[in-house]
Amino acid sequence: MPANSRSYAIIGAGALGGFYGARLQRAGLDVHFLLHTDYPHVRLHGLKIESKEGDFILPRVNACGRAEDVPPCDVVLVALKTTQNHLLSSLIPPILKPDSVVLIIQNGLGMEDAVARIVGPGRVMGGLSFLCSNKVGPGHIRHLDYGAVAFAEYSPESKPRGITDRMRAIGADFERAGLDVQLIDDLILARWKKLVWNIPYNGLSVVLNAMTDELMMNPATRELVVQLMGEVVAGAAAVGRTIPDSFIEKMLTDTDKMPPYRTSMKIDYEKHRPMEVEAIFGNPVRAAKAAGKELPKVEMLYRQLKFLDERNQG
Amino acid sequence: MPANSRSYAIIGAGALGGFYGARLQRAGLDVHFLLHTDYPHVRLHGLKIESKEGDFILPRVNACGRAEDVPPCDVVLVALKTTQNHLLSSLIPPILKPDSVVLIIQNGLGMEDAVARIVGPGRVMGGLSFLCSNKVGPGHIRHLDYGAVAFAEYSPESKPRGITDRMRAIGADFERAGLDVQLIDDLILARWKKLVWNIPYNGLSVVLNAMTDELMMNPATRELVVQLMGEVVAGAAAVGRTIPDSFIEKMLTDTDKMPPYRTSMKIDYEKHRPMEVEAIFGNPVRAAKAAGKELPKVEMLYRQLKFLDERNQG
Repeated sequence: MPANSRSYAIIGAGALGGFYGARLQRAGLDVHFLLHTDYPHVRLHGLKIESKEGDFILPRVNACGRAEDVPPCDVVLVALKTTQNHLLSSLIPPILKPDSVVLIIQNGLGMEDAVARIVGPGRVMGGLSFLCSNKVGPGHIRHLDYGAVAFAEYSPESKPRGITDRMRAIGADFERAGLDVQLIDDLILARWKKLVWNIPYNGLSVVLNAMTDELMMNPATRELVVQLMGEVVAGAAAVGRTIPDSFIEKMLTDTDKMPPYRTSMKIDYEKHRPMEVEAIFGNPVRAAKAAGKELPKVEMLYRQLKFLDERNQG
Repeated sequence: MPANSRSYAIIGAGALGGFYGARLQRAGLDVHFLLHTDYPHVRLHGLKIESKEGDFILPRVNACGRAEDVPPCDVVLVALKTTQNHLLSSLIPPILKPDSVVLIIQNGLGMEDAVARIVGPGRVMGGLSFLCSNKVGPGHIRHLDYGAVAFAEYSPESKPRGITDRMRAIGADFERAGLDVQLIDDLILARWKKLVWNIPYNGLSVVLNAMTDELMMNPATRELVVQLMGEVVAGAAAVGRTIPDSFIEKMLTDTDKMPPYRTSMKIDYEKHRPMEVEAIFGNPVRAAKAAGKELPKVEMLYRQLKFLDERNQG
């Protein structure tokens, strides 16, 4: 990966990829978008970002409808929903240079292992996004809040890998785009910490057809949220990661302060889109089980969501 | 309780009390109904039973709208939903003779303890009903299938009490009414066995808005049903009751053979009636916990149902 100017391929230009890609392009970086449904629109009209940090339009972007048409890039940013990750084995390889980095900004667990089997472990990085945005139309993103990203190196042995030069380089590009960046040494710990919020709220919001504030105000479900968070922390402990109890407290008080929030999984469910059940629920349950720890309530939520997801798709 | 002819007070003349009470009256027994909503109708028009075992009408029944108007009876049959059991402390005492038996035919756990605190433990019996019937209008019961009953003595120490003369006498009355009767020596075991079916199917049918066949056909929920049944069996074991694995197998194959079935709790939920969440879920969870055994998935179902029930009532 070159020390200075890096090129970016963005796979998926939805609420996440569209936002980060547009911000990188606006900052002067060489960005290429690989699109599917929105390709005809974006090729003609570019991207439109509404944001509390300032609206802007990119009337022309490098848009491709096929991976073979994207020039090989230094950073391949995977910004699909994990439910589409079965496409990555055909989408990523045409875009790769020998020293490219594949940066996977997704929720859940285990995505990097699957991509490492495609591109080799040395080219994989994981990313976490703390972004609240929606795609409201083709090439049209509404950025509501937050936007920070965190990057970490992938380790096939699931070990902390420390901060590397290429992390710093990519981090600098995102900072140049005006985004808060955190470089972290332990991808697995970061992914489990994000699950502490994602598992109870995404899962229960779908199963109980509820907004976050409803789950927090009812004592029965508030305690269930705490119990699910406790199981996620226990799952992290089983794979050797310590999440302090104070982190659960922080997630609860942060959520108490949020306005009533419709989780992204609930939005997916309502729109009859596939839910990220395997990445966010199935993989953590299996990872904990492989380490000797059952997560009974998370597993039950996983089974309930699988049922609802299949009926919702069928 | 007299050796020969016994009088019966039926508290609640819905799908269960209306059916059993009408059958007992048709068999020649002295039956009195304590009614609430349906009192004006039943007083004037009696009871109408549609049944695969033969339709019949009782144009005149002894109907009362207040407990004080019911003559003291030898057997007081509690046939309310458990969600109305808070009324029993005012409904039962006026109907009692010194040697009356209060027979509680309800689903769930712990109802007898509460009634024993009102009338004393020596006057309490528990009953289980295997009946498929609906109230389709005031005083109008549709009997669809089954109808067997099982009776057992209550023990404040939760011990098996064996078969007593008064069990035999009441059992003979029900047999005279053409019903299959089973006399059982261990009420607690019988209640937990009934929960093996009631907990997974009633609970999941509400939370997932599903009929029994949907839960059985989807592998994720079928396995969840098995896991929930396993927890109920473990809860029974914690209180000293052995339910063999073959019983779970039988519940599964019986349910596989049933036509698609809408559980009674799902019907209650759809009609915005209170669900029997505490008797069927809360009490077993607490009983197992008091005996040192957590039932994590049953507890999660309990919390989900409490949330749905409160929203559904509110």
